[in-house]
Amino acid sequence: MTAKPQSALISPLQTARQLAAQFALTAVERDERGGTPKAERDALRESGLLALSIPTEYGGLGARWSETLAIVREFAKVDSSIAHVFGFHHLMLATVRLFARPEQWQPWFEQTARKNWFWGNALNPLDTRTVVRKLDGWREFSGKKSFCSGASDSQMLIASAVDETAGGKLLIAAIPSSRSGITLHNDWNNMGQRQTDSGSATFERVRVEESELLLDPGPLSTPFACLRPLIAQLTFTHMFLGIAEGAFDEARAYTLTEARPWHKSNTREVSQDPYVLGHYGEFWVALEGVRLLVERAADLLDKAWAKGPKLSAEERGHLAIAIATAKVAATRSGLDLCTHLFEVTGARSTHASLRLDRHWRNLRTQTLHDPVDYKLHELGDWALNQCLPIPTFYS
Amino acid sequence: MTAKPQSALISPLQTARQLAAQFALTAVERDERGGTPKAERDALRESGLLALSIPTEYGGLGARWSETLAIVREFAKVDSSIAHVFGFHHLMLATVRLFARPEQWQPWFEQTARKNWFWGNALNPLDTRTVVRKLDGWREFSGKKSFCSGASDSQMLIASAVDETAGGKLLIAAIPSSRSGITLHNDWNNMGQRQTDSGSATFERVRVEESELLLDPGPLSTPFACLRPLIAQLTFTHMFLGIAEGAFDEARAYTLTEARPWHKSNTREVSQDPYVLGHYGEFWVALEGVRLLVERAADLLDKAWAKGPKLSAEERGHLAIAIATAKVAATRSGLDLCTHLFEVTGARSTHASLRLDRHWRNLRTQTLHDPVDYKLHELGDWALNQCLPIPTFYS
Amino acid sequence: MTAKPQSALISPLQTARQLAAQFALTAVERDERGGTPKAERDALRESGLLALSIPTEYGGLGARWSETLAIVREFAKVDSSIAHVFGFHHLMLATVRLFARPEQWQPWFEQTARKNWFWGNALNPLDTRTVVRKLDGWREFSGKKSFCSGASDSQMLIASAVDETAGGKLLIAAIPSSRSGITLHNDWNNMGQRQTDSGSATFERVRVEESELLLDPGPLSTPFACLRPLIAQLTFTHMFLGIAEGAFDEARAYTLTEARPWHKSNTREVSQDPYVLGHYGEFWVALEGVRLLVERAADLLDKAWAKGPKLSAEERGHLAIAIATAKVAATRSGLDLCTHLFEVTGARSTHASLRLDRHWRNLRTQTLHDPVDYKLHELGDWALNQCLPIPTFYS
Amino acid sequence: MTAKPQSALISPLQTARQLAAQFALTAVERDERGGTPKAERDALRESGLLALSIPTEYGGLGARWSETLAIVREFAKVDSSIAHVFGFHHLMLATVRLFARPEQWQPWFEQTARKNWFWGNALNPLDTRTVVRKLDGWREFSGKKSFCSGASDSQMLIASAVDETAGGKLLIAAIPSSRSGITLHNDWNNMGQRQTDSGSATFERVRVEESELLLDPGPLSTPFACLRPLIAQLTFTHMFLGIAEGAFDEARAYTLTEARPWHKSNTREVSQDPYVLGHYGEFWVALEGVRLLVERAADLLDKAWAKGPKLSAEERGHLAIAIATAKVAATRSGLDLCTHLFEVTGARSTHASLRLDRHWRNLRTQTLHDPVDYKLHELGDWALNQCLPIPTFYS
Repeated sequence: MTAKPQSALISPLQTARQLAAQFALTAVERDERGGTPKAERDALRESGLLALSIPTEYGGLGARWSETLAIVREFAKVDSSIAHVFGFHHLMLATVRLFARPEQWQPWFEQTARKNWFWGNALNPLDTRTVVRKLDGWREFSGKKSFCSGASDSQMLIASAVDETAGGKLLIAAIPSSRSGITLHNDWNNMGQRQTDSGSATFERVRVEESELLLDPGPLSTPFACLRPLIAQLTFTHMFLGIAEGAFDEARAYTLTEARPWHKSNTREVSQDPYVLGHYGEFWVALEGVRLLVERAADLLDKAWAKGPKLSAEERGHLAIAIATAKVAATRSGLDLCTHLFEVTGARSTHASLRLDRHWRNLRTQTLHDPVDYKLHELGDWALNQCLPIPTFYS
Repeated sequence: MTAKPQSALISPLQTARQLAAQFALTAVERDERGGTPKAERDALRESGLLALSIPTEYGGLGARWSETLAIVREFAKVDSSIAHVFGFHHLMLATVRLFARPEQWQPWFEQTARKNWFWGNALNPLDTRTVVRKLDGWREFSGKKSFCSGASDSQMLIASAVDETAGGKLLIAAIPSSRSGITLHNDWNNMGQRQTDSGSATFERVRVEESELLLDPGPLSTPFACLRPLIAQLTFTHMFLGIAEGAFDEARAYTLTEARPWHKSNTREVSQDPYVLGHYGEFWVALEGVRLLVERAADLLDKAWAKGPKLSAEERGHLAIAIATAKVAATRSGLDLCTHLFEVTGARSTHASLRLDRHWRNLRTQTLHDPVDYKLHELGDWALNQCLPIPTFYS
Repeated sequence: MTAKPQSALISPLQTARQLAAQFALTAVERDERGGTPKAERDALRESGLLALSIPTEYGGLGARWSETLAIVREFAKVDSSIAHVFGFHHLMLATVRLFARPEQWQPWFEQTARKNWFWGNALNPLDTRTVVRKLDGWREFSGKKSFCSGASDSQMLIASAVDETAGGKLLIAAIPSSRSGITLHNDWNNMGQRQTDSGSATFERVRVEESELLLDPGPLSTPFACLRPLIAQLTFTHMFLGIAEGAFDEARAYTLTEARPWHKSNTREVSQDPYVLGHYGEFWVALEGVRLLVERAADLLDKAWAKGPKLSAEERGHLAIAIATAKVAATRSGLDLCTHLFEVTGARSTHASLRLDRHWRNLRTQTLHDPVDYKLHELGDWALNQCLPIPTFYS
Repeated sequence: MTAKPQSALISPLQTARQLAAQFALTAVERDERGGTPKAERDALRESGLLALSIPTEYGGLGARWSETLAIVREFAKVDSSIAHVFGFHHLMLATVRLFARPEQWQPWFEQTARKNWFWGNALNPLDTRTVVRKLDGWREFSGKKSFCSGASDSQMLIASAVDETAGGKLLIAAIPSSRSGITLHNDWNNMGQRQTDSGSATFERVRVEESELLLDPGPLSTPFACLRPLIAQLTFTHMFLGIAEGAFDEARAYTLTEARPWHKSNTREVSQDPYVLGHYGEFWVALEGVRLLVERAADLLDKAWAKGPKLSAEERGHLAIAIATAKVAATRSGLDLCTHLFEVTGARSTHASLRLDRHWRNLRTQTLHDPVDYKLHELGDWALNQCLPIPTFYS
C-alpha cells in the first residue's frame, strides 16, 4: 500500500479516521506496554500523513494548520501518544520552515515527503545541559537532553544546544537521528503519554554542519518565526480536546451499554437518571465551549501563517491570546471530564481491562508541559493591562 | 430628530452604542429608582431601532437576528433592563411573524416601523389565571397575568389566555395596550432587572377580535413557529453575556484607576499583583468561551430563520441545543464573574454610589427565568441519548 | 425592662435568640433604609449583652469568646449589620484589654458593664490620614478616617493615628465618642452591611490624654496582644457563617412553602425534585464543614485567651491558621450558597419585598475586608513551608 | 515477633505507623504489581492489629471505632489497598457482632484474636447471582459473587446468598474461606486499589451450617444492626481522607526537594511562588474541613456503638447524615487534590517511578462504591425535608 494514490481518493481526514480506528483496537494494550509504537508509526509513514503540512510544491499534501491539527485531535481521541508524536513531527517541520533559510528547509521538506521521514524532538529550551563547541567549519554538540518526544524511530531530529561563549545563546539544528554520537535512551516510562518516547538523549561530540543550523532568521527572531511556540501550544490544545472527546465517547458507549441505574434511581434506564443526564449536560457544555475556542484559534493560526513574514508582532500577540485561552479552557474542562466521567460509568468501569483512567493520565501528564497558572497570568495581563505576551518558547 | 435619515448614515450598532453611552450615564441612578425608563424608551423610539428586526419591505431596518441580538448584548453591558424590554419588543414581533398569517403581521410590522410602536409582553404560559370566553365573532380575555415585561408604556401587547373549553389550550393575541379592560399595575419591584416593568396585569372582559388571534399556524405549531421560544432563550443569553461583559469592563476600569495593591503584595501596582492577574485571566477565559458559544448560536438562528417554513424539526432541535449550551455557559460564568469581580476591585468598591452589585442582581434575577438544572437535563438527553428537545415555551 | 435580672434567668444565647427574632421582623425594611439601627442598638443595650465578654468581676457576663462569637453568628443569621457592630463592640473591649494596662481597661470594663456603653471603631491601620501631634501632657489627633464601623451612636471609640515623628508608628487610643473635635459623618451607604454605620469620621485637633493611649503592652506587641486581629478575623468568620445559615433557613422556608416544581420535573412536590435535593445536599455539606471549622477555631481562641500573657508565638500562630482556614472556607461556601439558593427558590423569590439578595450583598461586602487570596497565601506558606503567619492587623 | 507483648509497650497507632512506614517502602512497586500483598497481610497478622476492634474480654485490643478507623486512615496515607482490606476485616467482625447471636460471634472473636484470622468479604447485596438452597439442617450456597475484597488469603468469609423461595431475602453467613466448594478467582485487576483482591468468587454447592447464618437479629434488623453499612461508609471515608493526606504529603515533599520555580516566576524558590502557595492554601482548607467532618463522624459512631441495642432509629439516622456529609466532602476535595497536586509538583513528577497518579486512581476507584449523587440526594432530603435516610446496605 502506498499513500499517494490513496490520498487522491480519500481526504487526509478520512485517512486519519481509518488509521485512528485501527489504532483504537490496540490503544489500551499499548498504554499498558509503553515503548515505541513501531507498527503505528509505520502506518503513519505509509499513510502519507507525515507530508500533511508540507506544501504541495514540495510533494506534500498542502494542508492548512487547522487541517493538520484537526487530525492531531482525531488521533488524540483514541491515542494521545500517537497524536503527540504526529503533532510534534509537523511542529519540527514548522521549526525548520520558520527558523531557517528556504535553501535549507526546501530539501528537507522534499525528502520528508518523498521518503516519509519522521521527525523527532530534542529541543528543550529549559534543559541547558547540552552545549555547543565551535570548530573549523562545523560545530559539536555534547551533553544530555530530556523530554525528547518522538526521537526514537525518527529519521530527523531538531536538537538544541547552548553556546556558552555567546552568553548562553540557544542554537538549534536539524540533523539525521542516526548521526554518529547520538544515543536515544528509550527510557521514557511515565504515568501518561506512555508511547511518546519522551525519554532522554545523549550527544557525544555530535558533528553539526553549518548548513544544519537554523540561524536565519533564527529562533524567536521575527513575529512570523515566533509562531513556532504557538504551533506547539495549539498542538497540545488539540490533544487536550481530543483526549476529552475520546473520553466522552468512551464514557457514553459504556453508559449506554454497560451501566445500570442505581437502585434508588426512580428510572428504569440509567440513561434517564436525572443525575446522569445532568453530568452529560455538564460535559456537553464544557466540550462545546472548548471546541469553539480551539477551532477559532486554529483558524487564526491559518490566517497568521498565510501572512508569512508580514505578520506583525501585534497580530502574533492576538493569536497567542486566542491559543492560551483555548489551552486553559481545554485543560480545566478536560481534567474535570476525565475525572467525573466515572460517575456516569460506575464502579465496574474501573476494571483494568478498560484502562479508562488513561484519559486522565494522558491529559494530566501533557497539561503539565508548562504551568496553567502562568498562562492565566499572561491572559490576565492581556485582559487587564492590554499587554500581549512576550514571545518565549512557552508563550 | 428622526431616526430614518440618521440610520442612513450610521449603522444600527453605532446608533445603539451611542444610546448605550447615554443610558450608561443614568443606569446606576435608574437601578436605584426602578419604575419605567420613559426617557430611555422614548430615545429607543426616536432611534428607529424598534424597527430593527422588521424587514425593509415593511419599513424596517431589516436586521438579521444576530444583529438584533448583538444590540441587545450592547445595551445589556450598561443597562440590562433596557436590553430586556428592547429584546422582548423584537421577540413580540417574532411572535406575530411566526404564529400568525401574513395579512395579520404585515400591517403590524408596517405600523410598528412607521409609528415606532413599542410591543410588550403579557404571555406567560405557566400563569393560567387568564381565561378566554368565545362570543359571537370575538373573544373575551379575563383574569390576571404576572411577569408582563415591557407592558407599561407600550403600544401593543402579546397576551395569552387559556381556553378551558378546549382542554386548556393556549390562545395568543396581539392587541393594543390601550384596549379597554386592560390594567397594567406598575407593581414590579424586584432585586434586579428593576426597570423592566415585569409587573402584573389584569384583563377585565377584554375584547379580542378574531383577526387579533395568532391561530395560523399558531403557537409552537411548525418547526419554524417553534423558533419563538428559542429567540426568547437566545435573547436572554445575549443579556447574560452583555451583563458579564459590562461587569468586566466596570471592574477593569476600577482596578486600573481606583484599586490599590494589598500591603502584602510584592508589587507596586495592583495591575501587577499575581492574584489579580490570575482572576482577570479566569474572567477572560470564561468570557471568551461564552462569546463564541453565543455568536455561534446567533449565526445558527440566522440560518434557521432564513429557511422559513422549510426548517425541519431536526434543524430546529440542533439550534435549540446550541442555544441551551450557550445559555448554561453564560449563566454559570456570568454569576461567577459578577461575584468574584469584587476580589479585583476591593472593599471600597462596595460603596452604594457604584451599585456594582447590580450586575449580580440583574443576572441572578434573569437567569431564574427557567431552571438551569433542566437545561442541563435537556443537554444531557442530547449528549447521551441523542434526543433533541421537544419544543415548549421554554426549550 | 432591665437586662441583668433577665440574664439571671435565661442564658445569653436565649436572650440573643429573642432579640434576633425581634430584629428579624424589621431586617428587610432596615436593609432597605440603611442608617443607624437605633432601636436595635438600644435593645442590645437593654439586654445586657454589651457586657457579654466582660469578666464577671467587672460586672460583665463573663462569656468565653466562643460564647460571644456564637451570639455574633446568631445575630448574623437574621441581620449581619447588627452582628457586625455587636461583634466589633466586643472586639474594641478586647483591644483595650490586650493593648493597655489593667488600670486603664478595668474602669472602662466596669463602666461599660454598668452603663451599657456601646464601643465603636475608628481604627483602620491602612488609612493613615489621621496624624498625632505631641503636646505638653497630651496628644492631638487630626485628620480623617474611613470605615468607622459602629462609631455612630457609640459612647466610646477606639481611634488610631499615625505618629509621623516616630516613623509612622500607629498610636491607638480609647476616647469618648463625644469628645470635642470628633465628627462622625453618617455617610455610610453601601451595597451591603447597610446598618453598620461604617462611614467616615473627622478628627479636628482632638485631645487625647496619655491615660487614654494604649501603649503598654501596645498594639501587636506580645503574642497575647496579637490575639486582637485574630478576634477580628474570627468575628468576621462567625458573621459569614451566620449569614450563610440565615440564607439557608430562608431559602428552605421558601422552598417548602412557596416554590413549585418545574413543569418538566417528574415530581409533584418541589421538595422531591432531584435537582432541588441535590442543591440542598450541596448546601448541607458546605455548611457542615464550615460549622466545624468555625467551632474548632472558637474553641482554640478560648484556650489561647485563657493562657493570657503566657501564650507563645507558636500557639498564637496555630490559632491564626485555624481561623484563616475557617475564614476562607466560610467565604467560599457562603458566596456559593447565597448565589445558588435562588435555584431552589425560583424566579418569584427575586421580588424586592423579600430582599433575598441581601445575604449575598452583606456577605460579599464583608468578605472583602481583606483579600481571601492573601489568606490562601498565608495558609499555603503554612501548609508547604511550615511558616506561621507574622502578626499584622490582618493576620 | 508476636504482637501481644509489643502492644503492651506501644500503642496500636504507633504499631500502625511503624507498619505504614514499612508498607510505604514497597507501595509504589506493589501498586504496579497488583495481586495479594501477602507479606504485608502477614505483617498485619503479626502485629496483632487484626484484633484491634475486638473487645479485650475476647482477647482483642478493645479499640473504639474511632481508633480503628484512625488506623485505616493511617494505612491509607501510604497504601489504600492495605487500608481497605484491614478496614473490611474489622467491618466483617462488626457484621457478625451486629447480625448474629453472642454465642455465634463470641467464639469467632476469640479465635480471630488468638489465631490472627483475617476476614474477607463475599457480601455484595446488589449481586444476586448466588442463591441458597435449604437442605436438611443446613443450606447450600451456589453461584457467583463479584467484588470480594480481601477474600484471598483470608481465614473467614462473610458471604451472602439470595433465598429465592423467600422473595429474594438476603441470607448472610460467616464461613471458613477454605470451605469446600469455594473458589476465589484472584482475578482482580483494576485501575486502582490494586491489592485489595476485590475479584470474583464461585460457590459450588457450598455447605453452610445453621450456626453460621447471621439470622438473629439479622441484617439491617434493628437500628443497632443498621450500624453495619454506616461502619462501611465511614471506613471508606477514612480511606478517602487518608489517600488525600498521603497525596498531600508526597506532593509537599516533592515540591520542597525536587520542583523548580517556573522561569516567569519572580521568586527564586518554588516554595515562594504565589500560585504554588495558593494551591497549597487551597489543599489545606479542603483537608482541614474534611478532617473535622471525619473525626466528628467517628466520635458519633463511638457514641452510637456504645449505646448498643438501645440505639434509636433517629440517633442512627443522625449518624448516617454525619457520615454521608463527611463522605461527600472527602470524595470531592480528595479528587480535586489528587488531580491538582501535579500543578505544584510539575511535569517531571509524572515519571512512572513515582506512580504519583496512584492516589487519584485509588481514590477514583473507591469513591465509586456507591454514587455520590445519591448521597447528596439523601443529604438534601435531610437538609430540606428533615427526612433521615432509610437504612440500606449503602446508607
